[in-house]
Amino acid sequence: MLASRFVAGRCVGIFRNVYRSHIRTHLITFAEKRFESTLSAPHSVPLPQHHNNHLSRSFSRSAMASVESIVQQLQGLSITPAATVSHAAASSPATWREALEQSSSAPKSFELIKTIVYKPKTAKTATPVPLVVVAREGTDVISGALGKKLNLKEPRLASEDLLTEFFSLDKNSLSPLALNEQTFPKVVTVIDNTIESASTIFAIRGLSTSSTIFLTGRELFSYIKRLETQENALHEIDFEALRTDGPAASATTPAKKEKESAKIEGAAQIAIGIKKEVDFAGWYTNVLLKADMLDYYNVSGCYILKPWSYSIWEIIQDWFNKEIKELGVQNAYFPMFVSQSVLEKEKDHIEGFSPEVAWVTRAGKSDLEEPIAIRPTSETAMYPYYAKWIRSHRDLPLKLNQWNSVVRWEFKNPQPFLRTREFLWQEGHTAHLTKPEADIEVRQILDLYRRVYEDLLAVPVIPGVKSEKEKFAGGLYTTTVEGFIPTSGRGIQAATSHCLGQNFSRPEMFNIVVEDPNDPTGQGKIYVWQNSWGLSTRTIGVMVMTHGDNQGLILPPRVAAIQAVIIPCGIAAKTSDEQRKTINDKCEELAQQLKKIGVKAKADLRDVHTPGFKFNDWEQKGVPLRLEIGPADLAKQQTLSVRRDTGIKAPIPLAQLTTVVPQLLETIQSDLFKKAQDNYYSRLKEITKWDDIVPALDNKCVVALPWCEEEACEDDIKERSGQSSEPQDERAPSAGAKSLCIPFDQSRWTPIVPGQTKCPACSKDAKRWTLFGRSY
Amino acid sequence: MLASRFVAGRCVGIFRNVYRSHIRTHLITFAEKRFESTLSAPHSVPLPQHHNNHLSRSFSRSAMASVESIVQQLQGLSITPAATVSHAAASSPATWREALEQSSSAPKSFELIKTIVYKPKTAKTATPVPLVVVAREGTDVISGALGKKLNLKEPRLASEDLLTEFFSLDKNSLSPLALNEQTFPKVVTVIDNTIESASTIFAIRGLSTSSTIFLTGRELFSYIKRLETQENALHEIDFEALRTDGPAASATTPAKKEKESAKIEGAAQIAIGIKKEVDFAGWYTNVLLKADMLDYYNVSGCYILKPWSYSIWEIIQDWFNKEIKELGVQNAYFPMFVSQSVLEKEKDHIEGFSPEVAWVTRAGKSDLEEPIAIRPTSETAMYPYYAKWIRSHRDLPLKLNQWNSVVRWEFKNPQPFLRTREFLWQEGHTAHLTKPEADIEVRQILDLYRRVYEDLLAVPVIPGVKSEKEKFAGGLYTTTVEGFIPTSGRGIQAATSHCLGQNFSRPEMFNIVVEDPNDPTGQGKIYVWQNSWGLSTRTIGVMVMTHGDNQGLILPPRVAAIQAVIIPCGIAAKTSDEQRKTINDKCEELAQQLKKIGVKAKADLRDVHTPGFKFNDWEQKGVPLRLEIGPADLAKQQTLSVRRDTGIKAPIPLAQLTTVVPQLLETIQSDLFKKAQDNYYSRLKEITKWDDIVPALDNKCVVALPWCEEEACEDDIKERSGQSSEPQDERAPSAGAKSLCIPFDQSRWTPIVPGQTKCPACSKDAKRWTLFGRSY
Repeated sequence: MLASRFVAGRCVGIFRNVYRSHIRTHLITFAEKRFESTLSAPHSVPLPQHHNNHLSRSFSRSAMASVESIVQQLQGLSITPAATVSHAAASSPATWREALEQSSSAPKSFELIKTIVYKPKTAKTATPVPLVVVAREGTDVISGALGKKLNLKEPRLASEDLLTEFFSLDKNSLSPLALNEQTFPKVVTVIDNTIESASTIFAIRGLSTSSTIFLTGRELFSYIKRLETQENALHEIDFEALRTDGPAASATTPAKKEKESAKIEGAAQIAIGIKKEVDFAGWYTNVLLKADMLDYYNVSGCYILKPWSYSIWEIIQDWFNKEIKELGVQNAYFPMFVSQSVLEKEKDHIEGFSPEVAWVTRAGKSDLEEPIAIRPTSETAMYPYYAKWIRSHRDLPLKLNQWNSVVRWEFKNPQPFLRTREFLWQEGHTAHLTKPEADIEVRQILDLYRRVYEDLLAVPVIPGVKSEKEKFAGGLYTTTVEGFIPTSGRGIQAATSHCLGQNFSRPEMFNIVVEDPNDPTGQGKIYVWQNSWGLSTRTIGVMVMTHGDNQGLILPPRVAAIQAVIIPCGIAAKTSDEQRKTINDKCEELAQQLKKIGVKAKADLRDVHTPGFKFNDWEQKGVPLRLEIGPADLAKQQTLSVRRDTGIKAPIPLAQLTTVVPQLLETIQSDLFKKAQDNYYSRLKEITKWDDIVPALDNKCVVALPWCEEEACEDDIKERSGQSSEPQDERAPSAGAKSLCIPFDQSRWTPIVPGQTKCPACSKDAKRWTLFGRSY
Repeated sequence: MLASRFVAGRCVGIFRNVYRSHIRTHLITFAEKRFESTLSAPHSVPLPQHHNNHLSRSFSRSAMASVESIVQQLQGLSITPAATVSHAAASSPATWREALEQSSSAPKSFELIKTIVYKPKTAKTATPVPLVVVAREGTDVISGALGKKLNLKEPRLASEDLLTEFFSLDKNSLSPLALNEQTFPKVVTVIDNTIESASTIFAIRGLSTSSTIFLTGRELFSYIKRLETQENALHEIDFEALRTDGPAASATTPAKKEKESAKIEGAAQIAIGIKKEVDFAGWYTNVLLKADMLDYYNVSGCYILKPWSYSIWEIIQDWFNKEIKELGVQNAYFPMFVSQSVLEKEKDHIEGFSPEVAWVTRAGKSDLEEPIAIRPTSETAMYPYYAKWIRSHRDLPLKLNQWNSVVRWEFKNPQPFLRTREFLWQEGHTAHLTKPEADIEVRQILDLYRRVYEDLLAVPVIPGVKSEKEKFAGGLYTTTVEGFIPTSGRGIQAATSHCLGQNFSRPEMFNIVVEDPNDPTGQGKIYVWQNSWGLSTRTIGVMVMTHGDNQGLILPPRVAAIQAVIIPCGIAAKTSDEQRKTINDKCEELAQQLKKIGVKAKADLRDVHTPGFKFNDWEQKGVPLRLEIGPADLAKQQTLSVRRDTGIKAPIPLAQLTTVVPQLLETIQSDLFKKAQDNYYSRLKEITKWDDIVPALDNKCVVALPWCEEEACEDDIKERSGQSSEPQDERAPSAGAKSLCIPFDQSRWTPIVPGQTKCPACSKDAKRWTLFGRSY
């Protein structure tokens, strides 16, 4: 028996969103326009009869109007919502949740309700009967199993057209409250059976992305239940049972292997529910959630790093620790609190951070005498002690590093890993006797950062120096490794290593000074040369964005907590216990064999899941290599390997497992890097004429300009390049192009002829090729 | 040449303090009393003539009076102090600094001035001429080298009697301002030559521990300089040069090996400057500072963990991570912020923490809508997500751990590592289907904690369960490993592993529930069983207190960042460069040899320091094993090993180095544990009569009582045992005896006969032997 056919697509329609929460008015206008056009103008989609009735009209007229009419209707049913909240338009569950959490009128604790519409397969001429699923946010809706249960053929996620046709709503505004006397009879409705008795308050779309109505589970249930007729029942489904009943149910319907794997592929394609190239921000959030890397947290801008992502950070920590210890750096820990006077000592520096500093003002019930800051970075917290500890040139170099979290209370839209209010990082702070020594270290560390990205995460970066405008506040110069996200066409600062010069050590600052050992008079003083450098969990976000695909996460083998997952296949109901045990034992044996040679292998022997479920599960989680073992494989003494990155399948003779698997993992690692690098390089445009810049940016490229390196020109480029007609993703803080870096390796581009090559923005003499781009 | 004779004692008298900062009035009264008694009553110490003059009288009369008169006197000299501050009596530099930092009238930044008095060796009948050293807080005063420079014989730290005799002040109130026309001619005065030109403001004792006068370096200098006469000069000393000139100077005075090592031993005995058994709190702080483990930080109650202590934490982390991962625990990271509603959900629990919670109320210049707490522990922050993630019994057990810092803004006296406002720890949080499973894990983790203490830190602990009164707020029961600090005779909670029962999972709390897989009706629900367990950097403090001696820190080899230090010896001025190189090369070669077999070895080839300086340095830092290599050793193909714990010296043939050193390190490890365990056990008193309890406690013991286990009785024991006449150390929060734990192993004591054995406190039936003691 081949159970995997029951896996099918696990699609959560509500997740397929575009983040456009700031354009609330725009959305409403758009909805109205669309509604009007469907009313007044000829339309290619035939309008069903019920479409034009009063209720659906008032629902789609505007958010406020629809909320009022729904509430009226609910009150007619003796249901009084716990709250109704208007908020910024929020398309995705994540932004929706955030919008509600920021609202003072929303309940403290709630769960989102998702409404998903599927279209079962029908004859082309037949009128479709959509399948509407109302479920709790966390419920896994497995459409295949559901279709089977309801005897509906191959339910697939409904198109936007179908939603418009039946509900006059887009998928993000869809709500169980769109079910009414008119719509209910036309569809098959399913409700998550845990809703009715849940003690939670549920957040339900007010038929728009900018209004929410809060009901109890019982209220929501009774709202739908009353619509039930003899002909048209409300189906209460135990999705948990559906999920786990899979294998048992499948025993009755064996299918051919060929057909099955096609289905799995089909299922996998919509596993994430949102296409990377269509809605990148929604895709990103979904990959993180489905891969179990992260969860949202009830303090806005803060996220939970679950083991699947934290383990990557641990691998980076281990590697980086070893490298910096070789350089003589020691780890230490400084307190998270910084007194106001110390924090604000360096003016340029604090100016860069002060709007984002979180202040503790109270302990227990007592107000503190003076507010105390939570470090946004630790330069000014550490350097008074550097001044104390460095008494002689023999105390140099002083090289400390700490692994900690810092807080920058940004009010821009947060994004997991890329922009969060608290984030994990390391910050190194070193002091040197001479500038050359400091310079060398800046570059040594930068190269370690490059290797974290390229060698561990398989993410290409370009090392270079930041422009004066973009350098670290208060430092002398900043070096950077610049990454690139092809899907958004934006650059991303991946990690930075700063030379602070003597700015923090000078007498009026922290006065970190030693006697000059080389001054024959013995009178000379040297203010120490300092560096600081940091790498954060942003690494993980960049990695996800770079490699992930529409099946979910793809992990480079070197940072994967599980590199190879071994899955028993071909176990059916009629399989004898003995056969089952043989296969399972073999899986476990192979896992042990691989572990012994250092491959992080795991045998997935969960007996409640089908192989197909497991394939999907581990694909979403990005495990680089899958090894399948079925009776036929066993007979041939082989295992079928499936690469996560390419999907390429190849049998591996068991006798060669321990040689082939490590090689294959290395191949995957280098192929991932090569692919990402080719992608980056193909989007790196050498540009010498102004008119070519914006089209290149709009074409999701980074431009290399022969640049004059003047700050006014940089401001001008940003201003002028920001006037593109391309719709902006408001998650990205900058729409105009900033300078990303001046690459150290200039040899990639046509040599600049001093005095001849001109800056394409201001026509002054060009100095060096500089990367400009839209950025995170 | 044998240079180490010049190391001598590096004593900093000001550090020899008792912490009694809260008993300000008491101290002043005491000073007055003493002064009056020396005036009015016969006294065994002969009073020198100058003692009775007006100035010294007004100085010691009371803190306020003395400050006024000093300020008047200074103004007469045209010196106007930057500030004068009255504060709580602060004996140690640490508490003094804290008192000043908490004062709004003190300058934001300052340095402490220390005043140390030595008595050079003189004939018994001669009038002593004390040596008074006025130096900056951070200056190393090496009394041996100083004595040599001034031609004063073997200066030793002056007795309290001598201070009273000359200045009518105790050592903590001593100040350069006690030098005046009367006192200056009777002493030899030395001033740190960096004071005059320093740009810092200096804090100077106002002749009491509760008042401080702030002067510039130039003002302080001129105050003393004006007292100079032709007969009596003020000596300006470059202590840095004194410290580093050692080797050069020593070249002129070769001495015999025997004599030298005696001197080193003598020097080492006072290396820490405070005797452990005399002033334990002062000793502890000094060990931490001298061993370079920790520094004070300008936010009160927070400390900097320097690499020498942080590396111990890293070793603990590595070990513990490996062990818990074996148990299926995964690491994760939850945000440091907790919303008020979530934090306060469990009432019993929050009651235990709320007075200590730090609240963020502002970000940048914006007030937050709602204050957000910094986690004091993460139960309530994590469990809403446990409720979300645990949907089925198949999601159990869920076992997460995080390494983080938590904040408990205690207003009690902080103490490094033992009680700090921010501290590092791990917190594990697990959920289980059944109570037996949870119970087993509680004990598994507790045993790991025992092994961290016993196997890594060589600190004995006693595992047991806490009384109802002492258990974790909101939990079901708490298991603990209880440590013991013999020097203070106090118990210390070393780490705890809690079973929370179903208290956090029940429906009205976080509602973490699954269907009962064993219920045939399919209707049964199980609220999960939860544990939480934590181990903090307190480990390091307990380790320091347990093993350290009057030479400083003693590190158990398994947690030492450097296990063996190799020091070249016998290099003199006349040693040829070639000979020098041969010896240094050999040291480096041995270090490499040892590293290859996994011994953390380091060759200390610093050429500016004498071997004696290095011996002292590494002894203070607690390196378990020293290997000396000199020309004679080289000739014999051996190295002289010196154990830090016992001082035992033994030659090791170089050919056997790689076998003997690892064995020796293991011996040191087990000897340290054995010694500490013997000490602990010898202080564990089986007591069955009430009257024996307080004497045992006063005798710095922990008592085992056959206890009734009733809470009222526990309160009573605490109350009644707190009425001892023993002077209390206010650093310790509890003076009465608390229950420490009910040991799992009851076999150590006379079996309790049910119904017969009575509780010695209340005469009810005894249940189990329970440890009671004063505690941290």
